[in-house]
Amino acid sequence: MTASAARPPPHLLDRLKALLGPEGWSEDAVELDAHLADWRGRERGFTPLLVKPASTGEVAALVQVCAEAGVAITPQGGNTGLVGGGLPRGEVLLSLKRLRRIRAVDPLDDSLIAEAGTPLVEVQQAAAAAGRLFPLSLGSEGVATIGGLCSTNAGGVAVLRYGMMRDLVLGLEVVLPDGRIWNGLRTLRKDNTGYDLKQLFLGAEGTLGVITAAALKLFARPAATETAVAALADLHASCELLALAKEMSGGGVTAFELLPQRAFDLVLKHIADTRTPFVQPPPWSVLIEVSFGRPEGGRAVLEAILAAALERGLISDAAIAHSLAQAGAFWKVRETLPLALRLEGLALAHDVSAPVSRMPDLIVMAQAEVARLAPGAPVVAFGHVGDGNAHINVGPAPGRELDPALAHAITDAIHAGATALGGSISAEHGIGAQKLAELPLRRSAVEIDLMRKLKHALDPKGVMNPNRIVSFHA
Amino acid sequence: MTASAARPPPHLLDRLKALLGPEGWSEDAVELDAHLADWRGRERGFTPLLVKPASTGEVAALVQVCAEAGVAITPQGGNTGLVGGGLPRGEVLLSLKRLRRIRAVDPLDDSLIAEAGTPLVEVQQAAAAAGRLFPLSLGSEGVATIGGLCSTNAGGVAVLRYGMMRDLVLGLEVVLPDGRIWNGLRTLRKDNTGYDLKQLFLGAEGTLGVITAAALKLFARPAATETAVAALADLHASCELLALAKEMSGGGVTAFELLPQRAFDLVLKHIADTRTPFVQPPPWSVLIEVSFGRPEGGRAVLEAILAAALERGLISDAAIAHSLAQAGAFWKVRETLPLALRLEGLALAHDVSAPVSRMPDLIVMAQAEVARLAPGAPVVAFGHVGDGNAHINVGPAPGRELDPALAHAITDAIHAGATALGGSISAEHGIGAQKLAELPLRRSAVEIDLMRKLKHALDPKGVMNPNRIVSFHA
Repeated sequence: MTASAARPPPHLLDRLKALLGPEGWSEDAVELDAHLADWRGRERGFTPLLVKPASTGEVAALVQVCAEAGVAITPQGGNTGLVGGGLPRGEVLLSLKRLRRIRAVDPLDDSLIAEAGTPLVEVQQAAAAAGRLFPLSLGSEGVATIGGLCSTNAGGVAVLRYGMMRDLVLGLEVVLPDGRIWNGLRTLRKDNTGYDLKQLFLGAEGTLGVITAAALKLFARPAATETAVAALADLHASCELLALAKEMSGGGVTAFELLPQRAFDLVLKHIADTRTPFVQPPPWSVLIEVSFGRPEGGRAVLEAILAAALERGLISDAAIAHSLAQAGAFWKVRETLPLALRLEGLALAHDVSAPVSRMPDLIVMAQAEVARLAPGAPVVAFGHVGDGNAHINVGPAPGRELDPALAHAITDAIHAGATALGGSISAEHGIGAQKLAELPLRRSAVEIDLMRKLKHALDPKGVMNPNRIVSFHA
Repeated sequence: MTASAARPPPHLLDRLKALLGPEGWSEDAVELDAHLADWRGRERGFTPLLVKPASTGEVAALVQVCAEAGVAITPQGGNTGLVGGGLPRGEVLLSLKRLRRIRAVDPLDDSLIAEAGTPLVEVQQAAAAAGRLFPLSLGSEGVATIGGLCSTNAGGVAVLRYGMMRDLVLGLEVVLPDGRIWNGLRTLRKDNTGYDLKQLFLGAEGTLGVITAAALKLFARPAATETAVAALADLHASCELLALAKEMSGGGVTAFELLPQRAFDLVLKHIADTRTPFVQPPPWSVLIEVSFGRPEGGRAVLEAILAAALERGLISDAAIAHSLAQAGAFWKVRETLPLALRLEGLALAHDVSAPVSRMPDLIVMAQAEVARLAPGAPVVAFGHVGDGNAHINVGPAPGRELDPALAHAITDAIHAGATALGGSISAEHGIGAQKLAELPLRRSAVEIDLMRKLKHALDPKGVMNPNRIVSFHA
């Protein structure tokens, strides 16, 4: 029995309700439903109480009450996570959704301060309104919140040029596991006064504290962006083409997404108003986006890249988008692919990474493992070549089922193979509850020990989102 | 009496000597001299023994021996630090200089693995030989080593575009305070499998472990770079000009350095073969470098930026470098300025930062404080506008002395002012031993407590570079 499963005493719940007022909590089944549903539909959370504080001070007060009573808390943002990190399993559920304010936008400082519950899209819009770019971009950006994106070190399609969420944060405001508030909302570009404390909380999935606000980096908007699709000679050509494109654009590549033939078939089948830029989609293709500091001349650079790639035999065909609408049509295939995969029933998903130069090997390995364990089972691998990050989706062989034991064996083999390539079993999605037990198999004993030391040092009572990332009592 | 000042027993020193062999240690006064000298000449280190391991395994073995005996260690790289972080005060002095190997360069992965003792310039050269860029650049790059640069989270002149050393590291190999080796030399761009352990050691000044190797990010080389100097209408125009240049180049600004009139006077006076691009140096000017992904057309962009700035009244004059030699001459003023300041005797240095939009206020504040405390004392402020980082140098008023009490009062006032502006008392240089006592005055009690918790969790015996950043026994 873990700390998180122990039901808090009624008087404690009453104390929380009194503290937060009638707007600040809920036991209503309808309201709770969206907070307890797992995006992938594999699990349902449960909680004795949903609390909805409206300020950092209220977060601090409720955390202090829980900490003193040894009652566990699970913080939640937009509930778009994929590993059960924000889904309560008996913990008090702390929704940050009412902390939804953009506190400051400073274009001269290229910074923006947003509260944890602000959806990503609102931050993107506020940056654009100030003539700036906040570059983080991912499928769930309308729902995912800044606090959750910080806590999970979110990735997405712009990592190649702008980095993960960790790279986009200048400062944080955090409620610590004992209820104290750390105000680290500095917007400094340079600050070497001791340990960089914000790094502790970024990507910690709420296990070391509750992020209540973040100071974010803004960027200049590129003067021009050009988009193309190219049919690769083979999978391994993807890395060489990426290197060529980076070199010939002086580092201007902003997206480089790998798509297999089946991606086009599935999207055409399941998603309305989609088109393929290829008469016959090739076995492997890439979507390339290059951004420039000058308004003119970018297309010539992209044409030169594609001509050089044709000459070197890296690609067999290519098409440059000649309008924003055409670029949008190219992107639509990539962006709707996860939905098409779900509709097709290729539901066994893997979020693995390897060094960029080993990403083709990662995919070949996964295909071989599936062929060995489940002959005939379809594999659709796509992802971010520039980040070495492949999303590998597996479905049942025609007329068969992917029963839990077989699914587990496939995942185990793919994860072991990724680890052997120097890779990661969770490139973007995190550990949460789902990969908690597996982590010690994939990371060294020294690493697990260091993680546990951090957890014990910052959350000695084990009240902050227990049994995510590291188990407390081991 | 601190742990670091206790002289280790002779039998322990003998054990270390036996462990490392005749090449692996020294008590020779001449050899020790370079390791014990402080670059600024304000302090001299002392040590019972200099150890010079040749491998990560040897580092681990000697750390284990010291840890078991409770004997303190100070790791040292190129000994170019400015805050006494790598200068022993009775600790065993661990030089990483013999770990000087580039283990791997992978252009397709855009990564390079270098051992801790490798000088920065050798990494820059290895990257260039592979057709890539390692962008970290600072005055001491011929001597400063990768381990020291990681441990101090080094900055320099390319931070605006490429970030600090922290942003350039993919993975680390670290010997922990108990002698275990953590192999975290992954080159992954995306890895969300638990806490990001490398962040603990970056910028920790050797207080949480000894960095023995680092996996570094490489970049595509820009296709073209254009350089200009511009005379600012006033100090506050610097931020607006930076924003304009970023906007009009689509984020292509790679350097933006502020120079006061006196910088030109001092460099012309003290440094041979220097020229000023201005007939009459203006009160404030900036050195601007913009890089482009296309070989042609960059100059037109820079011309357009300067024309727009003239029209808006942000600048009164500007000159674009028409050759590499001319660009080199512009840069020489900036690069030789620290030496000229030393030769002139403007020796009271401050390394402060503020939000980018407040950097002019930071300089005005420092000038006012000096005028108040030491009327007539010269102030030369220069620095990285894009990072909000000002280097503020103060000398004695003509015919006066800057006695220690007055120097302390000036520094205290400037640091208090920087803190009040939401800034930092150490933007690039770190805390080391020099600012140890001051840190609790400038960071909150919560922050000092968190730092102490980290130190105790990772180095419970307090043997790793004690009394730097946080004092152990407080």
